[in-house]
Amino acid sequence: MSHYNKGAAAERELMKILEADGFSMARVAGSGSNPLPCPDMIAMKKTKKYAIECKSWKGAHLVLSKEQMDEIANWSENAGIDFLIAWRMPRKKWFFLNQKDFNKTDKNFLISAKKAKEIGLTLNSILNGGVF
Amino acid sequence: MSHYNKGAAAERELMKILEADGFSMARVAGSGSNPLPCPDMIAMKKTKKYAIECKSWKGAHLVLSKEQMDEIANWSENAGIDFLIAWRMPRKKWFFLNQKDFNKTDKNFLISAKKAKEIGLTLNSILNGGVF
Repeated sequence: MSHYNKGAAAERELMKILEADGFSMARVAGSGSNPLPCPDMIAMKKTKKYAIECKSWKGAHLVLSKEQMDEIANWSENAGIDFLIAWRMPRKKWFFLNQKDFNKTDKNFLISAKKAKEIGLTLNSILNGGVF
Repeated sequence: MSHYNKGAAAERELMKILEADGFSMARVAGSGSNPLPCPDMIAMKKTKKYAIECKSWKGAHLVLSKEQMDEIANWSENAGIDFLIAWRMPRKKWFFLNQKDFNKTDKNFLISAKKAKEIGLTLNSILNGGVF
């Protein structure tokens, strides 16, 4: 699969998992139709509401541009819901991260796979009501 | 413009208006990519969160299928946010309706333009914090 298709497949995978857990899910339309940045998907229950940016990446580090991270964080803060970065590693291993878990450089936010595995919340934690 | 394009233009119009009022906006990706029904857009501030189904229609009655209305209402109820039907009438006149404002028939939910103008909330009410 192309990089794009892998990303889209990971999004669909996460949508289905969270929907099966009872979240109302919305996949957000692409940037072409949204004038401002917003997250890949929104997951909501009465008691938990998340804006989720979904990354499928098998490398040793995950990097998001400062601009993208800040814009989605602002969008979520203004919306009054929590912002999570969902990193899908190989073999359907998901880790859920907060912006503050990343190291900030001049232009990017960066986290290693090692650190993500140590401090990220697992899918089970999310499904069982992990608190951020 | 085609009926589809008119609907898309109305959606963009409403997205821009609510965004300018300080809402975090998300246009939801089309039904092709969402396995289950969900609203056209989501508008969120810390204090107000809406799922919005947007209809551009110049006829004397607005009709939504029972199936579509019930599915989006259930989605919104489960998400814990308010569900609004935004009817765009000619000349950029918007009226915001609740499901209970409609008359229910065997297969549809229906409301007249006359009734919508009488009981629907205007755009100003929404922007000034109308409570539902």
